[in-house]
Amino acid sequence: MENKKIDIAIVGGGVSGVYSAWKLKTKYPDKKIVLFEGGDHIGGRLLSVIPPGIPNMVAELGGMRILENTQHLIVKLIEDINKKLSPEEQIKLYDFPVDQPQNIAYLRGEHLRLSDFTSDPDKVPYKLSFLEKGNTSGTIIVNAIEQLVPGVTNTNLTEKERLDMCHKATFEGEPLYTLGFWNLLYRVISGEAYQFSIDSGGYNSTLVNWNAADAIPWYLSDFGLVPKYKGFKNGFQQVPISLANFFEQDGGEVRLNAKLEGFESKNNIFELTINGEIIEATQLILAMPRRSLDLLTNTSPRLQEIQSLISSVTPRPLFKVFTTYSSPWWRNAGYTDPVEGYVPLQSGRTVTDLPIRQTYYWPINNGDPSQSGESMLLASYDDGSNIGFWDGLRPQRKKAWKKGISHADLISDPFIGEGANAEIAESKVLNQSWHDYQAPRKMVEELDRQLKQIHDVDYTPAVQSASFRDWGEDPFGGGWNSWNIGVKSWEVKEQIVHPIENCSLYICGEAYSDAQGWVEGALQTADIMLTKFIAIESKNPVKQEAIS
Amino acid sequence: MENKKIDIAIVGGGVSGVYSAWKLKTKYPDKKIVLFEGGDHIGGRLLSVIPPGIPNMVAELGGMRILENTQHLIVKLIEDINKKLSPEEQIKLYDFPVDQPQNIAYLRGEHLRLSDFTSDPDKVPYKLSFLEKGNTSGTIIVNAIEQLVPGVTNTNLTEKERLDMCHKATFEGEPLYTLGFWNLLYRVISGEAYQFSIDSGGYNSTLVNWNAADAIPWYLSDFGLVPKYKGFKNGFQQVPISLANFFEQDGGEVRLNAKLEGFESKNNIFELTINGEIIEATQLILAMPRRSLDLLTNTSPRLQEIQSLISSVTPRPLFKVFTTYSSPWWRNAGYTDPVEGYVPLQSGRTVTDLPIRQTYYWPINNGDPSQSGESMLLASYDDGSNIGFWDGLRPQRKKAWKKGISHADLISDPFIGEGANAEIAESKVLNQSWHDYQAPRKMVEELDRQLKQIHDVDYTPAVQSASFRDWGEDPFGGGWNSWNIGVKSWEVKEQIVHPIENCSLYICGEAYSDAQGWVEGALQTADIMLTKFIAIESKNPVKQEAIS
Repeated sequence: MENKKIDIAIVGGGVSGVYSAWKLKTKYPDKKIVLFEGGDHIGGRLLSVIPPGIPNMVAELGGMRILENTQHLIVKLIEDINKKLSPEEQIKLYDFPVDQPQNIAYLRGEHLRLSDFTSDPDKVPYKLSFLEKGNTSGTIIVNAIEQLVPGVTNTNLTEKERLDMCHKATFEGEPLYTLGFWNLLYRVISGEAYQFSIDSGGYNSTLVNWNAADAIPWYLSDFGLVPKYKGFKNGFQQVPISLANFFEQDGGEVRLNAKLEGFESKNNIFELTINGEIIEATQLILAMPRRSLDLLTNTSPRLQEIQSLISSVTPRPLFKVFTTYSSPWWRNAGYTDPVEGYVPLQSGRTVTDLPIRQTYYWPINNGDPSQSGESMLLASYDDGSNIGFWDGLRPQRKKAWKKGISHADLISDPFIGEGANAEIAESKVLNQSWHDYQAPRKMVEELDRQLKQIHDVDYTPAVQSASFRDWGEDPFGGGWNSWNIGVKSWEVKEQIVHPIENCSLYICGEAYSDAQGWVEGALQTADIMLTKFIAIESKNPVKQEAIS
Repeated sequence: MENKKIDIAIVGGGVSGVYSAWKLKTKYPDKKIVLFEGGDHIGGRLLSVIPPGIPNMVAELGGMRILENTQHLIVKLIEDINKKLSPEEQIKLYDFPVDQPQNIAYLRGEHLRLSDFTSDPDKVPYKLSFLEKGNTSGTIIVNAIEQLVPGVTNTNLTEKERLDMCHKATFEGEPLYTLGFWNLLYRVISGEAYQFSIDSGGYNSTLVNWNAADAIPWYLSDFGLVPKYKGFKNGFQQVPISLANFFEQDGGEVRLNAKLEGFESKNNIFELTINGEIIEATQLILAMPRRSLDLLTNTSPRLQEIQSLISSVTPRPLFKVFTTYSSPWWRNAGYTDPVEGYVPLQSGRTVTDLPIRQTYYWPINNGDPSQSGESMLLASYDDGSNIGFWDGLRPQRKKAWKKGISHADLISDPFIGEGANAEIAESKVLNQSWHDYQAPRKMVEELDRQLKQIHDVDYTPAVQSASFRDWGEDPFGGGWNSWNIGVKSWEVKEQIVHPIENCSLYICGEAYSDAQGWVEGALQTADIMLTKFIAIESKNPVKQEAIS
């Protein structure tokens, strides 16, 4: 029965889980530490697959980038990981391109270049005010934020200073954390500027009514102040996979397809029901998305006690679909500049108010644009109500997560293009296959129609192969989470990592951080949790001895 | 213990519950029939209150109208009710005004009159195609529907024929019920026409991706084919209140504040847990919204068996807020016609893409417009993502339904205008007070700002008093429900009323009808349920004897 008694149980094989597992195994080499993952692989919402016939690209079906200048935890972690790997195995980054001036904005039925926002404002089909006109959505929102919290956009502030400032700020005498971001924006910009910011910004859910004291610094760090994005040569999923490997090399144990169905705590011991069996653990760390915690609550009395902490954030679905082609046809949607000659579309993103919302001309895994031959698009990256549009083209997938049922099992009418059987380059690190996430035929046909419209072309080469992921599905519930209005996030952040006194239950994950939706947030809460864990458990040496 | 053993338990004091109770008491006068209502009043999503100082108006915080030409069940029911009432007590209807040519459409920052849609199409700030231009949103969608299902918009079809046609129809070889309405509309109209239809149609949730085989006939009966709306002189809530009275006069029992917390069935007897006590019943009728069924599921094993039936529809929040003024200031937002002279704004609705979405110039309870003096607006009637905007202005209200907590208890900062203390006319029929639903100060201030903008005025008289209701809250979850893609609604509709063989559990309500969101739908499923109930229970005379 040795397998059924462990010291530290960690549930969840995403970044916060594998990072915590590795750190704890390093700290407590003699303890029996087991990481349980309900799915069949390590990675969580990082999911990197190599497309058929395109060995030098990696489709990021989940998280795809970091902000190198402000996200110190992930930058440091990559350095630490790389110290333990041989040069050819190491994690390598490239500059991840976003907005390019020649890229298209197809808004309200009009074709614009992104450069038109500032250089030809009369083309922009929104009735902006005198002060708003001629700005990008980023500038409009940053200016609005400066009106709401004077001084907060000062680039000399550290992330921490900016956060503190927002947590203490008031607007018309009311604390910012009691106010909604959407409601506040409506006080300082026009309805048209708000709509333009949603439409051309590419996201529906970032400017909605979430906690303004968190939304403002969050927005500034991602969209506001000259972000430096970096992508991953071998896929972002290499990070959690590497951490899980280190954990196992140090003697930790990873159990896949091991689904936590509920737990109770009795006499300072947790009884976990995993795949129908009872497993005992002294300490329990839930490194799971908020929605997964919801799904556990009915069968886990201790989670019922902390319902208000768990529900202090709202899950926000994100949807991604990749398509491959025999050539980068989008290069022809550029224009001829009298001086520079032909300027192709080749990298970064195009935006639209159609349900596709954002299309990325996917880079080669050194960051360069594809010039010819087999190429790939992140055809749609969308959120909010647009998820429902794509969901309609594959209704059989809804809420379908059950043990033993794979993504592919649920696609009754998959898209099979000419490139479906092309060879997939072998990866030394990744654990998932492009074909496990194949898109349905109807979805690909609709993408094709909208891509033609956005690029103003009547012909595009046939899609070769397509792959998608909707992070709104169970057990994830969202691609990111946002703090609810009225919540003091800085308090919840500290409380939730160890939510019940005298109970060795710990919780971490991106949802309860101030870098929600980012790996940085997962690491931040894992670090807060680990510090508390070590402090508390060091006070209980007897209990530890008894077990280990 | 007589009180704890009953024959027929009906849970839910909305229309389908009180209607079923009354019908069954008439059929089985000797049976002990009890109606349990979790809240403190009869009415469900019908909620009529008289505003302070305006004795000749009724604010409909819930359902506000019927379609006289097609909704035969409610029309017949009103006739039946009136036969039992004295002339002065009778339910009286008036013509409920909707779109008037002089009313405003404030879209994309432009002020239009509704008549401009057809008479001055160049003013309409959407890039519509040649065929779409010059049409209203209703005509655009009806034309699209005719392309999708040829012949279905023929006005000679009965509602039943139209429904059958849609349930059997295919599009590109696939059954309509497997397809999403939004996805299909995108095949036949432009993205701009779709957006125009959402924006100028006033609703976000009606054109989303719900089951196309149900959405099409539903849309046609409400928006498509010259609807004849009728309002209620004494408030729509008079209907369920009258039915509950009849039920009690016939010897039935109504228990308010009696919350069903869960139930089990053992040896053909239901054990209901109501306010912590066990009550036994031979037959159980759940006349509750879908969300209420969800909330019961954990504590009711039999509901777990029929999860897929219950979740075949999606709840759709609706939000309403009324404001009162010392004069109908909106009359000044009309225009001067060279022939007719001054044409005031006075009745029907104005639309906007701002979060207010729809404003109704509320009629006197004979259908006439208010000409002077104390007057009222349905300031906002909205749905979809706009709910989140208003929700931000009263976050303390979220998911707040608990026994013993009233709506008013949760408003920490209510709006108190000059008219708040004006006398409220006494109603002979209604059971709720305007002040029980008071709106928060911040909400009223924001309404004021948007109303000024929509009407292009710098000054509006101060709001006197304000009252609101968000039907997205528990235990309702939605103002209406929509059938999910892939569901054969015509089968679920029949199955759910008696979902488990040899178990006397019955379910009815608007959610599982083909007039979702309408009282007509509640009556339709109640009738289907009652027919089945009577047929089944007449086969069990021995069991009935044993109990009664």
